[in-house]
Amino acid sequence: MSAYHAAAADEGAAVALNGSHLTLVIVVAVVALLALAVAGGLVREVLAAGQGTERMQNIARAVQQGAAAYLARQFRTLAIFVVIIPFLLLLLPAGSTGERIGRSVFFVVGAVFSALTGFIGMWLAVRGNVRVASAARESGEKTAMRIAFRTGGVAGMFTVGLGLLGAAIVVLVYKGDAPNVLEGFGFGAALLAMFMRVGGGIFTKAADVGADLVGKVEQGIPEDDPRNAATIADNVGDNVGDCAGMAADLFESYAVTLVASLILGKAAFGTEGLVFPLIVPMIGVITAVIGIFTTAPRGRDRSGMAAINRGFFISAAISAVLVAVAAFAYLPSSFAQLSGASADVAALTADPRLIAIGAVLVGLVLASAIQILTGYFTETNRRPVREIGESSLTGPATVILSGISVGLESAVYSALLIGGAVYGAFLLGFGNVTVALFAVALAGTGLLTTVGVIVSMDTFGPVSDNAQGIAEMSGDVEGEGARVLTSLDAVGNTTKAITKGIAIATAVLAATALFGSFRTAVESELAKASQGVKDALGSFANFSLSVDAPNALVGLIVGAAVVFLFSGLAISAVGRAAGRVVYEVREQFRTKPGIMDGTETPDYGRVVDICTRDSLRELATPGLLAVLTPIAVGFALGYAPLGAYLAGAIAAGTLMAVFLANSGGAWDNAKKLVEDGHHGGKGSEAHAATVIGDTVGDPFKDTAGPAINPLIKVMNLVALLIAPAVVAYADNVAVRVTATVVAVAVVVGAVVVSKRRASGIAPTGEADQASRATEPVAH
Amino acid sequence: MSAYHAAAADEGAAVALNGSHLTLVIVVAVVALLALAVAGGLVREVLAAGQGTERMQNIARAVQQGAAAYLARQFRTLAIFVVIIPFLLLLLPAGSTGERIGRSVFFVVGAVFSALTGFIGMWLAVRGNVRVASAARESGEKTAMRIAFRTGGVAGMFTVGLGLLGAAIVVLVYKGDAPNVLEGFGFGAALLAMFMRVGGGIFTKAADVGADLVGKVEQGIPEDDPRNAATIADNVGDNVGDCAGMAADLFESYAVTLVASLILGKAAFGTEGLVFPLIVPMIGVITAVIGIFTTAPRGRDRSGMAAINRGFFISAAISAVLVAVAAFAYLPSSFAQLSGASADVAALTADPRLIAIGAVLVGLVLASAIQILTGYFTETNRRPVREIGESSLTGPATVILSGISVGLESAVYSALLIGGAVYGAFLLGFGNVTVALFAVALAGTGLLTTVGVIVSMDTFGPVSDNAQGIAEMSGDVEGEGARVLTSLDAVGNTTKAITKGIAIATAVLAATALFGSFRTAVESELAKASQGVKDALGSFANFSLSVDAPNALVGLIVGAAVVFLFSGLAISAVGRAAGRVVYEVREQFRTKPGIMDGTETPDYGRVVDICTRDSLRELATPGLLAVLTPIAVGFALGYAPLGAYLAGAIAAGTLMAVFLANSGGAWDNAKKLVEDGHHGGKGSEAHAATVIGDTVGDPFKDTAGPAINPLIKVMNLVALLIAPAVVAYADNVAVRVTATVVAVAVVVGAVVVSKRRASGIAPTGEADQASRATEPVAH
Repeated sequence: MSAYHAAAADEGAAVALNGSHLTLVIVVAVVALLALAVAGGLVREVLAAGQGTERMQNIARAVQQGAAAYLARQFRTLAIFVVIIPFLLLLLPAGSTGERIGRSVFFVVGAVFSALTGFIGMWLAVRGNVRVASAARESGEKTAMRIAFRTGGVAGMFTVGLGLLGAAIVVLVYKGDAPNVLEGFGFGAALLAMFMRVGGGIFTKAADVGADLVGKVEQGIPEDDPRNAATIADNVGDNVGDCAGMAADLFESYAVTLVASLILGKAAFGTEGLVFPLIVPMIGVITAVIGIFTTAPRGRDRSGMAAINRGFFISAAISAVLVAVAAFAYLPSSFAQLSGASADVAALTADPRLIAIGAVLVGLVLASAIQILTGYFTETNRRPVREIGESSLTGPATVILSGISVGLESAVYSALLIGGAVYGAFLLGFGNVTVALFAVALAGTGLLTTVGVIVSMDTFGPVSDNAQGIAEMSGDVEGEGARVLTSLDAVGNTTKAITKGIAIATAVLAATALFGSFRTAVESELAKASQGVKDALGSFANFSLSVDAPNALVGLIVGAAVVFLFSGLAISAVGRAAGRVVYEVREQFRTKPGIMDGTETPDYGRVVDICTRDSLRELATPGLLAVLTPIAVGFALGYAPLGAYLAGAIAAGTLMAVFLANSGGAWDNAKKLVEDGHHGGKGSEAHAATVIGDTVGDPFKDTAGPAINPLIKVMNLVALLIAPAVVAYADNVAVRVTATVVAVAVVVGAVVVSKRRASGIAPTGEADQASRATEPVAH
Repeated sequence: MSAYHAAAADEGAAVALNGSHLTLVIVVAVVALLALAVAGGLVREVLAAGQGTERMQNIARAVQQGAAAYLARQFRTLAIFVVIIPFLLLLLPAGSTGERIGRSVFFVVGAVFSALTGFIGMWLAVRGNVRVASAARESGEKTAMRIAFRTGGVAGMFTVGLGLLGAAIVVLVYKGDAPNVLEGFGFGAALLAMFMRVGGGIFTKAADVGADLVGKVEQGIPEDDPRNAATIADNVGDNVGDCAGMAADLFESYAVTLVASLILGKAAFGTEGLVFPLIVPMIGVITAVIGIFTTAPRGRDRSGMAAINRGFFISAAISAVLVAVAAFAYLPSSFAQLSGASADVAALTADPRLIAIGAVLVGLVLASAIQILTGYFTETNRRPVREIGESSLTGPATVILSGISVGLESAVYSALLIGGAVYGAFLLGFGNVTVALFAVALAGTGLLTTVGVIVSMDTFGPVSDNAQGIAEMSGDVEGEGARVLTSLDAVGNTTKAITKGIAIATAVLAATALFGSFRTAVESELAKASQGVKDALGSFANFSLSVDAPNALVGLIVGAAVVFLFSGLAISAVGRAAGRVVYEVREQFRTKPGIMDGTETPDYGRVVDICTRDSLRELATPGLLAVLTPIAVGFALGYAPLGAYLAGAIAAGTLMAVFLANSGGAWDNAKKLVEDGHHGGKGSEAHAATVIGDTVGDPFKDTAGPAINPLIKVMNLVALLIAPAVVAYADNVAVRVTATVVAVAVVVGAVVVSKRRASGIAPTGEADQASRATEPVAH
């Protein structure tokens, strides 16, 4: 493993990016800008479409306003992090002053890009929805689907365009010093995405669950009924959660995977390693454009999913071919010919071009396998969902149990697929761990080539969902048009589950690769450690993350525990916020008796306000947990438990994320199965049982589950950033105790405060008062 | 960490157990026999109590017959393992021929002792139940409680008596070679316990869920109504699952913890380390007797729980004092004075007596903390259960969500407590990992001192539950007697949850300690490895379980995944078996219309048969998974991923086990809360919602959750046993491929076959036919 040590020693030495390397990076940046231009073209196309009746436009406007108001308030709330953290980053002892400043600056760039991707994707989604509804009403399925998919295409192009642009600029400006700066870029992106995922996830499910509990359960009125004061909030939620949150999340996945591969690339492949990981996603941008334009439904397609699958697999296949061409054109045929590779790597006899192609293929195969596996576990016509549907005949308890066991099992198969991909890439290192880690990161870039299409697919979900909501509320879309929207909505459910699977896969690949950086950071600090530090580290004065040491095992358990706590907190936050929506809607029915017979209009804005305020307040605790726990573990227990902590979080996080996403998706589609007329159809006991399953699944699949992906990345990057400080201050009890006590106190304080708000959906108004009393906490 | 290497080199060298050491071990064996004698006395006392009316006796007899029939059939099924595995163990390349034979022989002894503990505990429980019911009817709460607790005391005394006796005999016979033989003893105990936990767990919950679904939900008749054909099976289930399964499980916890501490003790403390870990639980036996006899209810006690808590804390306090006395009497004041300690250990300046006392105290404090924490999360009058109760007002979905978030959170706190205990014990090693691991194991023996009382407390649960069932079915216990039994049943619910927390804590402590043995086994094999093996191991030719290597991380993910898969399989097995109970009971109601008006008697035996057959068939898949997955990981990926696999299983297993146990316990008591008259009381919508929560929680808390404890131990011991072979055959592709393919094929085959049985609770008779077709699989 001495390639590592060489790489560690190398750190800071400028890598020569000569003319042809630089030209290539500039080409990458230009392609990234072209992606943004394509996005601009798509925006124009979508906006040119018809907007339907005035009632439809009014509803759409209310959703637009609610969504914009939420994002504006969320960005104001998060601005504090974007201001404070760059200063904290400056204090960390890693890299030269120039690198530190760059890291802080690019932290802000990463955060802003992440926010921008989410904002643009959502901005168009709340305009695309009404146009999709209108197209379904006037022009039929194909036009509706094209508009929906191109609306998604904008988010897709922004995700890949901004991600690639940011990384290319860092490489152009910082060249060999890029890795340290890239950490800042990735951290900014991941932190903002995590907050957007958690906040948006709580908003969307508080509104959804609250609307269902009062509307469907108490008043017996249908979903999206305009008499329900929570319907607009529900539609806003689809956009701020599934759309803005998701786009930011995938932008972050894109950025962090790129960051990991560039850092590892430099250690493994020298200069070429800083350029090749940019070429692969550049190819992805090109094929994503092809994919988006290929996804025009054809005459003989059986369903919308066929067109989407075609777009996905065509773009994946073209990516594979182009990557192979690029590898042969750009990389040399032997490791010895790589510029600036360490002696250990140069001695390898394998062909680096084949390793690079193999690694990218691993990523592409993984993406396709996840697409197929997730489809199996969540599509309505496959066995798992059918069995959950059947279990509805014996009531809600068996629906819950069968959904949970489906979720647990599917999590295992997904984890094994991801683990298999990591292992496959590892084998491509031919025993050299540096090259193996780079191969894992390259597999991640292979996954990335599909992200443009994936984001388009996913944004498709909330846009169709909203289009259906607008159609239902306005009452202006009927017959064939309504049928078209229902079928698009079902396709959206499956694409959403697939996206979550791909997102968590990027988390594992990026996090595995980042272990290489963690090792480099620790070893370079150990190399210059004083005797006092070495004494304090004892047997850990040599790098070791061996889990047979009891303290490392404790770190591992804590890492897995954070995933459980984060999930539990997110789920209970939804419960609390939904409870307040329930009070508000009940109150409106009570004080405005005319709502039920249509003579009075509910105050939709108040529910939007409640969801906005509560979701922003509730995101503080999980957010603090993610950032501060690695700090507490690192300073209290040391670097080895911190490394094991990351490993525990990755393992538990992967399983928990897929479990939550797939059980939720399967329950949702089991409900649709019954609504399609099976087991008694709508209104039967079986239907009621599946509605309960769906409600349980809501915060699973849309709040806790998807937020685990950015959680893992945030914790990894925090650990990576503090690793040098953890080693440097190993013998400084004052620093260690202070850092630990402050971190633990803030986390415990946040958990206690969020618990003291009356939780659950309590029967009295006490909960609301209690929460008002503690409101300032999150701000 | 060179103490390890010294220990590894030491292996096989006889440790001199001189006269006084041997005398002490003989004293330990005598005390163990005395424990069995006390158990005999308790049996006589319980059997002497009155048995109530003839109807009560008839019901009790049916339960006795069902339980005995189940255990007989289970033991016949499991006999095949007890016959085959000793031969397989002989093939493994570790230790001398004498040690290998001893290991195989004591594998059988461990398995038989485990079975015997479960059998005796259950044998008396099915006789104690009717006597408790009779005492409640005739003599009041105190007598009823004393009989229930003393029935439990027999299981407690057998657990500690047989565990201590087995370990003492191994040490007496094999002296310095004891560690290898002890692995066999622990493995036999753990494997049998795992099967009994899984099989009993499926039986009890299939009967319980099936009985509730037809009885309460479809027919609207109360629990334990004699018209329900599944009631006897439900009562049998309480005994085979909560009683026999639990006693075997705790016996296994006891045995494996002892084994781990004796193995580590030899490496850390030399000869004294082979004796002191026997003295601590010997003290536990004495204080358990005190505890059991102290648990006589007093006049001023507010509830049964007060008496139980008094018994627990008195015995824990006395244990602490006596352990301190024993440490000062037996251990020398410096490491240099220990006989046979390695040079590294002898150089330590700390006082071994204080380390030993500190470690045992860590275990005692941990046991008490778990007792308090579990009580907080599952008792009816505490906030978490109250909040779940409140959430019942908004329906079953919110009950499920709040229970899941309570479960997730409580798992985190328990895991942090356990992790804190491990870390505390680790610090007692003063930087020496061998001593640190021994301290962790000694903390485990500290926990063990409470096991006698814990098992008595736990057996108390099913005995009271059954007593209430018999009272209800017979209709002969009314008024005050019925109230007494209800209150005893509620106490039983809390004691059961506490036991599960303690059991999983022993798993973590024992497994952490066993990492030391894993390291020793691998290093001694590495020391004699050929160049071919070293080449094949590459960078792993030096011992390293570092999780920053991608292959180790993959092992970690697979380890965590197995816990998820095991839980999913256990939960869906209950669903399938419960489905078949539902058909049978429905069928009986259909073909014997006189059942409802009491003119015909249901055929209770058929339901017992179905549960017996199905639970034995269903236990095969999870069982094979536990035994074969470590083999597949070890031979396919190598020893480092195998070590990481164990770590992943420990971390995920701890959290999952507590999550499942506590969410289940909390739902159960939330139901009791509503039944006590809150939120509308029995028959309200809120009650229906909590019944659904309770049904979901049934397989969580009584099937999947508690089986994770023996699962972790079995996987650890399998890994430990195959570790030398994994290293020795690292360069033998044929052996590796064969072992991997066979293991994977059997596991995949078992999973596929168990899935092909129609799962869930299907509406037609297909499920039953499909299952009959595949019946031979489990045998």
